[in-house]
Amino acid sequence: MHAVQYREVGQPPRVVDVDVPTPGPGQILLRVTAAGICHSDLTVMHWDAKTLPYQLPLTLGHEGAGVVEAVGENVNAVSVGDSVVVYGPWGCGTCHACSQGRENYCPRAARLGIMPPGLGRPGALAEYLLVDSERHVVPIGDLDPVKTVPLTDAGLTPYHAIKRSMSKLEPGSVAVVIGAGGLGHVGIQLLRLMSAATVVALDIREESRELALRSGAHHALPSDSKAVGLVRELTDGAGADVVFDFVGAQVTLDLAAQMAGLDSHINIIGIGGGSLPVSFDSLPYGTRVSTSYWGTRSELIELVELAKQGAIDVHVERYELEEGPEVYKRMEAGKIQGRAVLVPAQRS
Amino acid sequence: MHAVQYREVGQPPRVVDVDVPTPGPGQILLRVTAAGICHSDLTVMHWDAKTLPYQLPLTLGHEGAGVVEAVGENVNAVSVGDSVVVYGPWGCGTCHACSQGRENYCPRAARLGIMPPGLGRPGALAEYLLVDSERHVVPIGDLDPVKTVPLTDAGLTPYHAIKRSMSKLEPGSVAVVIGAGGLGHVGIQLLRLMSAATVVALDIREESRELALRSGAHHALPSDSKAVGLVRELTDGAGADVVFDFVGAQVTLDLAAQMAGLDSHINIIGIGGGSLPVSFDSLPYGTRVSTSYWGTRSELIELVELAKQGAIDVHVERYELEEGPEVYKRMEAGKIQGRAVLVPAQRS
Amino acid sequence: MHAVQYREVGQPPRVVDVDVPTPGPGQILLRVTAAGICHSDLTVMHWDAKTLPYQLPLTLGHEGAGVVEAVGENVNAVSVGDSVVVYGPWGCGTCHACSQGRENYCPRAARLGIMPPGLGRPGALAEYLLVDSERHVVPIGDLDPVKTVPLTDAGLTPYHAIKRSMSKLEPGSVAVVIGAGGLGHVGIQLLRLMSAATVVALDIREESRELALRSGAHHALPSDSKAVGLVRELTDGAGADVVFDFVGAQVTLDLAAQMAGLDSHINIIGIGGGSLPVSFDSLPYGTRVSTSYWGTRSELIELVELAKQGAIDVHVERYELEEGPEVYKRMEAGKIQGRAVLVPAQRS
Amino acid sequence: MHAVQYREVGQPPRVVDVDVPTPGPGQILLRVTAAGICHSDLTVMHWDAKTLPYQLPLTLGHEGAGVVEAVGENVNAVSVGDSVVVYGPWGCGTCHACSQGRENYCPRAARLGIMPPGLGRPGALAEYLLVDSERHVVPIGDLDPVKTVPLTDAGLTPYHAIKRSMSKLEPGSVAVVIGAGGLGHVGIQLLRLMSAATVVALDIREESRELALRSGAHHALPSDSKAVGLVRELTDGAGADVVFDFVGAQVTLDLAAQMAGLDSHINIIGIGGGSLPVSFDSLPYGTRVSTSYWGTRSELIELVELAKQGAIDVHVERYELEEGPEVYKRMEAGKIQGRAVLVPAQRS
Repeated sequence: MHAVQYREVGQPPRVVDVDVPTPGPGQILLRVTAAGICHSDLTVMHWDAKTLPYQLPLTLGHEGAGVVEAVGENVNAVSVGDSVVVYGPWGCGTCHACSQGRENYCPRAARLGIMPPGLGRPGALAEYLLVDSERHVVPIGDLDPVKTVPLTDAGLTPYHAIKRSMSKLEPGSVAVVIGAGGLGHVGIQLLRLMSAATVVALDIREESRELALRSGAHHALPSDSKAVGLVRELTDGAGADVVFDFVGAQVTLDLAAQMAGLDSHINIIGIGGGSLPVSFDSLPYGTRVSTSYWGTRSELIELVELAKQGAIDVHVERYELEEGPEVYKRMEAGKIQGRAVLVPAQRS
Repeated sequence: MHAVQYREVGQPPRVVDVDVPTPGPGQILLRVTAAGICHSDLTVMHWDAKTLPYQLPLTLGHEGAGVVEAVGENVNAVSVGDSVVVYGPWGCGTCHACSQGRENYCPRAARLGIMPPGLGRPGALAEYLLVDSERHVVPIGDLDPVKTVPLTDAGLTPYHAIKRSMSKLEPGSVAVVIGAGGLGHVGIQLLRLMSAATVVALDIREESRELALRSGAHHALPSDSKAVGLVRELTDGAGADVVFDFVGAQVTLDLAAQMAGLDSHINIIGIGGGSLPVSFDSLPYGTRVSTSYWGTRSELIELVELAKQGAIDVHVERYELEEGPEVYKRMEAGKIQGRAVLVPAQRS
Repeated sequence: MHAVQYREVGQPPRVVDVDVPTPGPGQILLRVTAAGICHSDLTVMHWDAKTLPYQLPLTLGHEGAGVVEAVGENVNAVSVGDSVVVYGPWGCGTCHACSQGRENYCPRAARLGIMPPGLGRPGALAEYLLVDSERHVVPIGDLDPVKTVPLTDAGLTPYHAIKRSMSKLEPGSVAVVIGAGGLGHVGIQLLRLMSAATVVALDIREESRELALRSGAHHALPSDSKAVGLVRELTDGAGADVVFDFVGAQVTLDLAAQMAGLDSHINIIGIGGGSLPVSFDSLPYGTRVSTSYWGTRSELIELVELAKQGAIDVHVERYELEEGPEVYKRMEAGKIQGRAVLVPAQRS
Repeated sequence: MHAVQYREVGQPPRVVDVDVPTPGPGQILLRVTAAGICHSDLTVMHWDAKTLPYQLPLTLGHEGAGVVEAVGENVNAVSVGDSVVVYGPWGCGTCHACSQGRENYCPRAARLGIMPPGLGRPGALAEYLLVDSERHVVPIGDLDPVKTVPLTDAGLTPYHAIKRSMSKLEPGSVAVVIGAGGLGHVGIQLLRLMSAATVVALDIREESRELALRSGAHHALPSDSKAVGLVRELTDGAGADVVFDFVGAQVTLDLAAQMAGLDSHINIIGIGGGSLPVSFDSLPYGTRVSTSYWGTRSELIELVELAKQGAIDVHVERYELEEGPEVYKRMEAGKIQGRAVLVPAQRS
């Protein structure tokens, strides 16, 4: 089968021919119907040999959707022919975190060599994808896999960050979204669906601000000191209740710190290389700062339910599987709008 | 192997010889090291043929501990020789509730014919027990299985009820425990461990009140109207913040209603046949009344951690497996103190 | 000044002339701009002399809005001329519940003789209203008092009930609203604003079902066994996550019990005289049943913020203050649509 | 009356004679029975004239207890002769935060010039103390004011920090306390009372480690890399669930970062001048870092309830009011063990 692989540190990914895997006990073989391409793949491909924690060659793609092609023994929850999406942050399944479905924070995964597809294990940019357990697939019924596959990361990541801050997203609160791109515009939609907070979107790109407004933001403006003024005005001087930084660069984190109110939340989602120091001097008292990583099993189920209601609209660009290497180039050049999704050719 | 089975409606259980089961893919065979006997088994054996939802013969016992004897394919979390206890309220494993480990509230289990061991599936009152999934066992290391096995129900059930009311168990709050027997005395220990609430235990039996005080209750008194007076006095007239009724008879539920304060919780845990009507007239405004059923996967893990710290002491009576039928008779006659645990003979 | 008073048990209320009160220290005198009329006033006027807990004559009206006319000493938070609404369920202000703004559950209020305006203390159906503390008014700025005054009860009561069940109103959940009348149609709007739950409205009246759909309900149908079928279908057999019963009659509570799922919430808001028994037999395991009473201080503040965003639209009928007695008659006859609001004549 | 005042920047505080204040409407005059001395006063007295946000002279002391001597109009909750402690972080009383009793995070206080006693307003190191509102005193009945007054800050501050992290303090969790001094040793007691977490105390001073063990810590060891090893061992490699840093120096914050697990909490309580950077590289994913400031009204009420149960034992050194300046000197020299409390002479 075709697969888009990262094969040599520093070299662009290539389309290669590899064997179709066979599902062992508990495993599920999916015929891939859609696979999302993510900015974080570029980050991985920029690491040097010392930093890279994965063995090469690596089939890329941590956003996967597919139809069940075959199952190993002891798979009962899905059957051949079911259309599913894949939960990516695999954990051990039995520790305290995993027993609550918080596999994204499994403390044993690293030690046991458990890694997500596309981030260590063979990923979804291929004609077939092997999933390790029935608990890592969520049926999507008649939903379009191309529109749905970004929910597994571009949807789940903002959803999880929002869930972590629900206690602060009361009616009357003000939420700031920095960066209205691939994840940010989904985050805005989710904030409007899940809360009655006033949503202020900040982005330096005009087209992203337009996307933010179409996604439901109450306000959209450039990420600068004027934005700080608006947030203060909207909150009678108090500052934002929650800031979601989908960029995570130093400049945006500094902006987040200026806008946050007492006892607020700042969630760092974008892997932009910035760092936010927490001290009594640097931030209003009580403000909680944290990164957030991907999402939980139950959150992906909830997100698929939202999709079934037609409540989410992810902006998607569709490509052939074999265009993968080219898509990464375009992404590097900032030419992808929304989420790029690869679709393998239908075989008959 | 020997097994204690309920074979005919209305007849007492018997020790019989049955085949040792073989673990299929995903399954675990335990050599039973301890199995708890529960009052609810008597309830089951009092049902008539129409009411009984299980097929006979049924190997009894929904509290199980054992050593892993063999595993089927696709079992990775435990190995032969591991000492474990069994999580009983099995669910489908993949629905929204199960994805959070709340398998005790799995809405699909009934439809799919998934039932707990000893309550539909062959139970723990046998030399060997088959467990359906690695997610349903929790390793206990060096803990004594006889002292630990009651945690799986007599511990987990009060623990879960307490967890549901943690928001009301603030320091300064008053919690009432009605019925300081098998589950109640564990509930009192857990309340003292997990909260700074003042614990008032009510029981009509003097020896149970003594057990309550030894278990950490601040007050122990007969379950009558004087008790209502004490609770009002302790709370400056406001009433209890939480009531845990481990009896669940009409008389105890009526008492619960008299003692509960505004916006309080009443948890019905005992299956004593009573019923508590909720209306604006019958209870203080805002009081929440609910039954609670067994517990979640992560709660059993937490409880085993508490046991490892030596923090819980379940009162246990130890018997041979073959004494099972006799133990049920003694329980029927009210002659069991604490929890009865059966131990199969060691084979060499 | 004119006031609508209930003066004799069993007799209809009358418009009378009473003195304008003078604010003492800490008190605020409002010139009433709008006062809502509530069904529960009829309940009060149907009680016999023994049951009635209030002294007569009683100026009615527990939904009040006004402009600050005068303040006593020690009032700093508002100034003469400010437009405000009144928080009704007054508490002692210093106990544990009140220290969190949960004055609606103040355990000392009854003992101290603290009662809400219109329900013991002189109410809002008058030209002037005396408020006991600055903490019991919320500024509304330029909002129309007539459209805003119902938020203080018809808005706050459903809002509070929804807040109590937010943990169950996850995306993908199903919420059932029984009774889409005065409170119910606001409840539907709030559910849509505050959550991504699917909202099913049940009402026997066709016009109320239409109001439900206009208010944002996803489904609206008659309250009968077909409704139970729809809820089961929407939830893949599991049952509703939350039921809000704004009627509270026996027939609607029975319906609620049939539709609720495992570990769900049933909130009784309507004072319809029904009663819901909780036991292991009567309801799915883990289902919490409670009444809920009015709301908290912070919730009223949040609701006013929502109104400032234009997010809530309460259906209102406007009358002169002097029409009060007639409005009660119309309400008794079921002729009021939405909320009736009285407006005292402007004096110059 | 005598008062300990900070009068000139850079100069030591002095005992001076000032007028006894008179309570206006809503105010309460206390005859001080005990006043705690806090390290943060030293911080204040080290600021230069530009940094100092308070007007001089300033009567010091933000931990106060007293007996009600006189009340202004509109004070109903307390009477002359009542023994009370004072809630310090005064807010506006009517905003959203204050309506929930979170006056410590009132966004309006600064703008309105509202400041705590001893930190802007005349403080408790005097014979009499004026309190602005009845909502800022909590009756303590027969409790010894000298032992109880430290609860208002040395107790409330750790209590609030612990409350913020209760969701992570499950049974089986590991909590690390860095710094077992004045606040830390109370924090350890509270952790043991309020949770079943395993408590690991770290302190470079041997006598503080002994105090930690007496206060209930399961483990106490020097704050170094060995401590990191122990925490990893106790958590099977996962890291601590919550770290409370009562020192807040750079070295202790760095240690906190090394010990924290995935999705954990780090609470910075000590004002030690350190700063903890949050990024995907610096900390495990999902870890929340925040300062926490003093506590809420309801938390002080809860703490007083704990004290009434005899559950807390604050280590106290007792001095005359006039020894205040000398006590600050001793504190500066590190010679105070636990909390220093000043007691004005009884006048007859």
